[in-house]
Amino acid sequence: MERKSFVDMDCSVAQCLEVIGEWWTMLVVRDCFMGVTRFEDFQRRLGISRNILHSRLTTLVDAGILKRVPYSVHPPRDDYKLTAKGLDLWPILTAMRQWGDQYAAPDGPPVTITHASCGENAHAVMVCHHCGERIEPRDVKLNPRANRMPGPPLRERTVTAPRA
Amino acid sequence: MERKSFVDMDCSVAQCLEVIGEWWTMLVVRDCFMGVTRFEDFQRRLGISRNILHSRLTTLVDAGILKRVPYSVHPPRDDYKLTAKGLDLWPILTAMRQWGDQYAAPDGPPVTITHASCGENAHAVMVCHHCGERIEPRDVKLNPRANRMPGPPLRERTVTAPRA
Repeated sequence: MERKSFVDMDCSVAQCLEVIGEWWTMLVVRDCFMGVTRFEDFQRRLGISRNILHSRLTTLVDAGILKRVPYSVHPPRDDYKLTAKGLDLWPILTAMRQWGDQYAAPDGPPVTITHASCGENAHAVMVCHHCGERIEPRDVKLNPRANRMPGPPLRERTVTAPRA
Repeated sequence: MERKSFVDMDCSVAQCLEVIGEWWTMLVVRDCFMGVTRFEDFQRRLGISRNILHSRLTTLVDAGILKRVPYSVHPPRDDYKLTAKGLDLWPILTAMRQWGDQYAAPDGPPVTITHASCGENAHAVMVCHHCGERIEPRDVKLNPRANRMPGPPLRERTVTAPRA
């Protein structure tokens, strides 16, 4: 199935996929959070050719995820750093890492994360910004603004995700 | 750049991408959380052909994300429902939706989510499972088990994500 554009799809998940739906995007973002900023370091870690990496980094700069910050004038060289929009991919990256740790790391997590303030393994959970209680699929109600998606109408409803 | 397999990459983000790195996966999972279970409904919402959809759903069943639950014997028909492994994609989906709402929904979020227990807009934030404090990029320390990734060694370090 061809990758298609989601620009016209009235869905924030689809709009997010418009940016991070290319598999390499989150690997570049991962490396940025690990402190990688230099072209040569991305290249060695991702194992891709220079022209392809340059094209991909330019795409992320154009999408406002990365910004170029010069560190040398002669010759001209840039660090690649996350913008605020890029830094806000952190919850997605964290949720992906934790899912991978749980379901696809038979030898244990390759990287563990320590929460600096408490010193414990920083396992992140999602809570409601307002009441601080956990937010699970069964605890929420969908309120679609309108249904511009094809298929069955999404009436206001309580999500009843099936129990596994 | 060709989509390549991440099976040999010692990284949980890459392993997660191995499953959800196909752009259509999270759209199917999104629809499942919205209560869609029937083949015809997925097809209308995703706008793809029957044979391609069948192939994609089979891939997700094989990956343990979805399970088939018969609802008719004559003719044989199945509902597609999320397994526990599929339900655990919820934090990723939620984080993606919220990022899309923030950066790619100029007319406002297409779907808002109400937290049933407090009645407020269910904006999810990530907190530490142990201490309950927020987990932000600057609050954590990476502890790599070993560096089997090419490129610069990832020493134990405090992440110093650049301020945007």
